Amino acid sequence: MTGSFRTVGVVAKAGSADAIDTAHELTGWLHRRGIRVAVEPEVASGLQGAECIAFEHSSTYDLVVVLGGDGTLLSVARTVPSGIPILGVNLGTLGFLTEVGRSELYPSLVEILAGRFSLEKRTLLDVELRRASGGSESYRTLNDAVIGKSALSRIIQLTLRVDDRLVTSYRSDGLIISTPTGSTAYNLSAGGPIVNPLLPVMVLTPICPHTFSLRPIVVPDESVVEVILETEQEEVYVTLDGQEGARLEFRDSVRVTRARDQAHLVKVSGRTFYHSLRHKLHWG
Amino acid sequence: MTGSFRTVGVVAKAGSADAIDTAHELTGWLHRRGIRVAVEPEVASGLQGAECIAFEHSSTYDLVVVLGGDGTLLSVARTVPSGIPILGVNLGTLGFLTEVGRSELYPSLVEILAGRFSLEKRTLLDVELRRASGGSESYRTLNDAVIGKSALSRIIQLTLRVDDRLVTSYRSDGLIISTPTGSTAYNLSAGGPIVNPLLPVMVLTPICPHTFSLRPIVVPDESVVEVILETEQEEVYVTLDGQEGARLEFRDSVRVTRARDQAHLVKVSGRTFYHSLRHKLHWG
Amino acid sequence: MTGSFRTVGVVAKAGSADAIDTAHELTGWLHRRGIRVAVEPEVASGLQGAECIAFEHSSTYDLVVVLGGDGTLLSVARTVPSGIPILGVNLGTLGFLTEVGRSELYPSLVEILAGRFSLEKRTLLDVELRRASGGSESYRTLNDAVIGKSALSRIIQLTLRVDDRLVTSYRSDGLIISTPTGSTAYNLSAGGPIVNPLLPVMVLTPICPHTFSLRPIVVPDESVVEVILETEQEEVYVTLDGQEGARLEFRDSVRVTRARDQAHLVKVSGRTFYHSLRHKLHWG
Amino acid sequence: MTGSFRTVGVVAKAGSADAIDTAHELTGWLHRRGIRVAVEPEVASGLQGAECIAFEHSSTYDLVVVLGGDGTLLSVARTVPSGIPILGVNLGTLGFLTEVGRSELYPSLVEILAGRFSLEKRTLLDVELRRASGGSESYRTLNDAVIGKSALSRIIQLTLRVDDRLVTSYRSDGLIISTPTGSTAYNLSAGGPIVNPLLPVMVLTPICPHTFSLRPIVVPDESVVEVILETEQEEVYVTLDGQEGARLEFRDSVRVTRARDQAHLVKVSGRTFYHSLRHKLHWG
Repeated sequence: MTGSFRTVGVVAKAGSADAIDTAHELTGWLHRRGIRVAVEPEVASGLQGAECIAFEHSSTYDLVVVLGGDGTLLSVARTVPSGIPILGVNLGTLGFLTEVGRSELYPSLVEILAGRFSLEKRTLLDVELRRASGGSESYRTLNDAVIGKSALSRIIQLTLRVDDRLVTSYRSDGLIISTPTGSTAYNLSAGGPIVNPLLPVMVLTPICPHTFSLRPIVVPDESVVEVILETEQEEVYVTLDGQEGARLEFRDSVRVTRARDQAHLVKVSGRTFYHSLRHKLHWG
Repeated sequence: MTGSFRTVGVVAKAGSADAIDTAHELTGWLHRRGIRVAVEPEVASGLQGAECIAFEHSSTYDLVVVLGGDGTLLSVARTVPSGIPILGVNLGTLGFLTEVGRSELYPSLVEILAGRFSLEKRTLLDVELRRASGGSESYRTLNDAVIGKSALSRIIQLTLRVDDRLVTSYRSDGLIISTPTGSTAYNLSAGGPIVNPLLPVMVLTPICPHTFSLRPIVVPDESVVEVILETEQEEVYVTLDGQEGARLEFRDSVRVTRARDQAHLVKVSGRTFYHSLRHKLHWG
Repeated sequence: MTGSFRTVGVVAKAGSADAIDTAHELTGWLHRRGIRVAVEPEVASGLQGAECIAFEHSSTYDLVVVLGGDGTLLSVARTVPSGIPILGVNLGTLGFLTEVGRSELYPSLVEILAGRFSLEKRTLLDVELRRASGGSESYRTLNDAVIGKSALSRIIQLTLRVDDRLVTSYRSDGLIISTPTGSTAYNLSAGGPIVNPLLPVMVLTPICPHTFSLRPIVVPDESVVEVILETEQEEVYVTLDGQEGARLEFRDSVRVTRARDQAHLVKVSGRTFYHSLRHKLHWG
Repeated sequence: MTGSFRTVGVVAKAGSADAIDTAHELTGWLHRRGIRVAVEPEVASGLQGAECIAFEHSSTYDLVVVLGGDGTLLSVARTVPSGIPILGVNLGTLGFLTEVGRSELYPSLVEILAGRFSLEKRTLLDVELRRASGGSESYRTLNDAVIGKSALSRIIQLTLRVDDRLVTSYRSDGLIISTPTGSTAYNLSAGGPIVNPLLPVMVLTPICPHTFSLRPIVVPDESVVEVILETEQEEVYVTLDGQEGARLEFRDSVRVTRARDQAHLVKVSGRTFYHSLRHKLHWG
């Protein structure tokens, strides 16, 4: 029954004693079912007698269970190879990405090991930072790529191009390039729309723009979105899912396209997107 | 060369002397090329000697030229049979739907008659008003269906369902269900996002909601969107493109789905969506 | 001790059996303390044996107790003579205007009759509708005066002048002229700011404007605000507190100024404005 | 006639050749009228033969002429002693603070030297940064004090108190505490209202808040506004007019009150606040 689940990765939220305890317990549960478990050092160090293999972001697993919140899931989804089913388990308040709560962990796993689950494929973005000075760096993101100024910087000027066409050159605090998945994260705080996670789109949402008619724009996810920093001598960064980042220099370009890979989120609860919205956003 | 354009409909903005004069001139231009012209009575009455046939919304034409603004084009696009190419000619300020300005009319027609043009297919919505008392009425819309209260009414309660799932029941002034085409119309004034006109989506934008976390939602255009009026004794209407409408009664339901037909807009200018945005919204 | 409270008006929310029952009970409570009670016919008809005088909006009272919600309080505050202390008792969910809940009614009255309360003076607005055809009509409002189009009307053009200076002439669904008290009502849904109720200001908030840089404006309450309807043949109304209204005709002008009178709300709870915000708006 | 203007400070925008040239020319113009001129080193170094005194921010002058834009004026207004009339001359596009354009410089000065001008008194804020570790630092601001996170930081938690009362503790990118003067600056980009510059208020506008019902709040300028940083280990700053700043540590408190001093802006043009709005914001 669990034949197709030979090796399961278990990732606990960094620094969370609760998550690490849960990981220990889960490791035992999986071992008792003859499943190999891969864990990170922080979890491994507390396991007495249990033999785990080392979790590596470049390896492939039959399933990765993420114990923590949306943040931990984002960091896993950005980095594991495409096609690995990821189950998010929320140990705090309900998230948009984490599928089940703590009390649902083992009942859900029973279902999953029995093959009774589906996969929801979420768009990932490839982000290429092309240096004006030559060279480039590559990143991946599940929620969003944000070009933003530092707190001490003045307003910045960005040029936005889509499919090699000028959209606008404008002054603001920055720009959010969001997947549908990320639409309920930073995009929503900045005034962007909520987007059904399965739609083939990206959302371009300016942060505190000086041009008041500049509004969030929904574009096809086949688009090539390019943002060029036109301001000198200010501290500006591109950040990925709010977790990684790199400093931009004058005339550097950030090119964002849909990744060939997708994140595969395990669905087992039957909860719909609209159900999550209603609960997370207190729509009564 | 113009063999495929035997009959052209010419529709002038109602009550506009300028549009009617232009229609007269255009009729002559088309007649000189051996093309039959269909016009409405307001245009026909001023044509001396020229023989036109009567324009009927249910007939089919090889091309319909709309002389006026976005409003006139909306009324034509909602009503003519699917598949008729529509060319919008703006006699005032540049619109989002009208493709060319007055000075471009004849050069554009030369291109079109020579077959050098493309068609942009825009989503239309079918709107079914299901009466709580039984029976139903059907409408079509290119920009939007708006459920809104009258000025003298108090706030209204609407239940929003997508694909038979409850999204929320909320108090507000109303709801806009917009196509991508309509995203730059009323939707934009109410805080909704701009949407690339070719995306397979609808936008659901609440008007002045009391629930502050209730934000515009972008959903697949395959969705069945249903709005039910939960308030008694207030004056509430559903309007289509701001041009037609019907009064809603307590517990009436408005169901919105993508129409099988699409509006076929003639593209001849090479202007992109982003170009129109930049100019219409003064993005500098 | 209750010497200064000889006659108390008791107003119950129209059509609410709960409010009427509470009014009956309250009438008895006041009678037992030797206080005369004035009630409206709907309350009087159910009082057996108790002799009440008829509540009249033009009469003066030592106190008016409003049993219902913010809506009932608004209708009383707009109409009773200036200077009458008004106590709002909320029978449903906490309001911004109603000071106490049902369970606090009698403890609060004991405090009030003993003179242990304060009065919070809220700005009222005088609204003069000057007809283009001659003549004028006068209204008063506690929350807001709203110039708005009906659901079936297209967008309207309004000219806004402050102190005889042109501010702008713009297209929209309408304009809200709000007191600080009204800032948490319709103004908030339309995107206006929250305003401390004791500030000497008015807020001018456009409803769904087409000009995207047109934002809510906070002006001195000494200002003369004038709004002129520039659109013909559309159905447009001015409404007061969402409760009364009049239809506007082409070129009619609505002039709004601070009233000489103020509404006197009884404060007995010690709750501050910020406390109400936190609870009503779920600021956690 | 010019008897009351014995010493005039002239401040040019740093690094602007245009502003420095204009300062040289203006110095000659003032010298010819027997007026002493104080300039900064960057201007003094290019003056041949003309004897100027050194401009010092702590000295007092009969007038300070600022050649540049709103930014240069802000830096002068924050630092010169209270009560010095400041004339802002815009060398680029019209600003909200700079009163006259280049072509109006000398005609305006003729008027001013003749005593035909008025002073508009603008609120300044005192900003006290109270360190959790003890000690405090003091700042002054004309537009705004902004508590904001750096680009690489995650969302921050702030507690907002007004007059020692809790308003809310919320997660966001930051908070703007704006004067009426600053309402058309960063506050406007972040969704805050426009405020008549003479009103006795402050505006508290959250930046990209996670609590969607958290909206801009207008409070009396007599209020004591206190913001406490509740997040550890993130990079957070308080900035003044976007020009100066200091890093905040965990549990540091920023206290904002109205300064006893005001900035005195010279008014000579007859342009009103509403006129500036209409032109700067393109209200047509």
